[in-house]
Amino acid sequence: MDKNAKFAVIGGGSWATAIAKMLCENVNEIYWYMRNEAAIEHIRKEEHNPNYLSSVEFDTAQLHLTSNINEAVENADYLIFVIPSAFLKTELDELTASLKDKIVFSAIKGIVPETSLIVGEHFHQMYNIPFENIGVITGPCHAEEVALERLSYLTIACANEDHANFLAEHISSEYIKCTTSEDVVGTEYAAMLKNIYAIAAGIAHGLGYGDNFQSVLMSNAIREMKRFIKKTYKMKRNINDSAYLGDLLVTGYSVFSRNRMFGNMIGKGYTVKSAQMEMSMVAEGYYATKSAYHINKDKGKKKAKTPIINAVYHILYDHKNPKKVFLKLVDKLD
Amino acid sequence: MDKNAKFAVIGGGSWATAIAKMLCENVNEIYWYMRNEAAIEHIRKEEHNPNYLSSVEFDTAQLHLTSNINEAVENADYLIFVIPSAFLKTELDELTASLKDKIVFSAIKGIVPETSLIVGEHFHQMYNIPFENIGVITGPCHAEEVALERLSYLTIACANEDHANFLAEHISSEYIKCTTSEDVVGTEYAAMLKNIYAIAAGIAHGLGYGDNFQSVLMSNAIREMKRFIKKTYKMKRNINDSAYLGDLLVTGYSVFSRNRMFGNMIGKGYTVKSAQMEMSMVAEGYYATKSAYHINKDKGKKKAKTPIINAVYHILYDHKNPKKVFLKLVDKLD
Repeated sequence: MDKNAKFAVIGGGSWATAIAKMLCENVNEIYWYMRNEAAIEHIRKEEHNPNYLSSVEFDTAQLHLTSNINEAVENADYLIFVIPSAFLKTELDELTASLKDKIVFSAIKGIVPETSLIVGEHFHQMYNIPFENIGVITGPCHAEEVALERLSYLTIACANEDHANFLAEHISSEYIKCTTSEDVVGTEYAAMLKNIYAIAAGIAHGLGYGDNFQSVLMSNAIREMKRFIKKTYKMKRNINDSAYLGDLLVTGYSVFSRNRMFGNMIGKGYTVKSAQMEMSMVAEGYYATKSAYHINKDKGKKKAKTPIINAVYHILYDHKNPKKVFLKLVDKLD
Repeated sequence: MDKNAKFAVIGGGSWATAIAKMLCENVNEIYWYMRNEAAIEHIRKEEHNPNYLSSVEFDTAQLHLTSNINEAVENADYLIFVIPSAFLKTELDELTASLKDKIVFSAIKGIVPETSLIVGEHFHQMYNIPFENIGVITGPCHAEEVALERLSYLTIACANEDHANFLAEHISSEYIKCTTSEDVVGTEYAAMLKNIYAIAAGIAHGLGYGDNFQSVLMSNAIREMKRFIKKTYKMKRNINDSAYLGDLLVTGYSVFSRNRMFGNMIGKGYTVKSAQMEMSMVAEGYYATKSAYHINKDKGKKKAKTPIINAVYHILYDHKNPKKVFLKLVDKLD
């Protein structure tokens, strides 16, 4: 463990706050970038993030808070990006500091809408960062439970095992256990796809399907996820590992999941637009659905069988009647 | 579909009542055995089971109710046993009618304590019924949701595909979808093991572990289940099919599961005895834990790695401290 290792957390939301907390258990100080200057002021004075996980108390002596992304990037060797994928490009456009020689970890769950790439591929293609310097932090992990210091397991994936181990060592603690993996692509896709399945679970719930159906849906979802990822990046992986199945379950069974809530409203009859307005935000899975549908479709004859993703796509983007779409979907499940 | 096919349902509990309902959607009449004569009288007069799924209304013209197991067995070709495994032997001891030429399906989830056999094997070994006449009905299926006619998926397993298809045809309906399988042994073990994992989930909840841990526990449980079943009966199966993973999830995530409730009380500090008294019943998983532990242990060097089953066993039977046992268990999960 290197207590002086230089980490930067890029993002000010709940998952970013949780990761900042995990790092502060181990290292002397971190750089923490967030856009919201009022939040920075609040953390400096009150020692907690006013908007997210406000029960988590920080020792401000450990925090270099900044609203300048370049300051955080320049001063750190290990960058952890934790901002909604929809805003990643806008944030990165402000970057003048070089990402060369940085180790870039993504804790973002989703696809960059502008490039339709998962975050790791986006960094590789847009910033020429070699794959061995790109990694992923994935869970099954609600940030809220990290705040409560409830035991949680993370998976750190990186083609370079040393980088994965280094990060794992520096965010592990009494309540955080880490596994490492080489499957950057698979874990990223899993993290993205699970949000689509959480929307599907929400729609089913909204339509009045029960727990029996939910378990069948999840059982089909993990098989579909396996097929999708295999067609995208074939390697030896156990889809029942926590980073894939665990992540699917923690989201698909969570009544707090924004994706599931969004789906639930759709199932109850809200239009996509009214559901989004009601939630005053867009669930990650909304974008993920479009991306996943097209990524798969573009494979032509080599595409995977993805009845659940297709159903959600037709409901969200073709504005098909959820009840009718599900009546067809349920015949494709077993 | 043969509307005159002769089915007998053996048992009067909630799952038996659900199966009787499913059959009555398709066949003209069924034999229905239950020990409780007052319940039979009630069903005859009031057209519903007073004790279980009382919202389900039966057309009594379809029901040959009897408290004589031999009457039901003699008059039917297809027997569906749905009684707690702990009482199966006692019930079968009353049998004078021959089981020869009967097709025997088990909807029992558990092990016969007296013989430590799964139900299919018990019928085979004790009654010389050939395996091709023995099948299993398994699901991810809460009986309560069948009562509400919520879409549910069952798996009918039998070495003889025709028998599986026949039963599937006669219990399928608008709200019941059936898949068939040849994996009698695997589906039976899955149905039994999932109750142990539900106890584990309950203990974890009782000890204060959260949703993040629950998802990791389930992810490890399905991998453990796969290893256990593979060592017991090796064949090509997808452990993520509904009969295995779906069944695990519907129980492991159900706050109504008796096994999970039992585990929860243990995690909260109740002794095994006081938890059982409080629940005024013994959860199936209690027996399953002992059986599974010994079945696996008896394999010697060929035994599967089963840290979760072992942990539950040590808590329930060696009266080890749940908190301490789980502190060791969590290091074996990933």
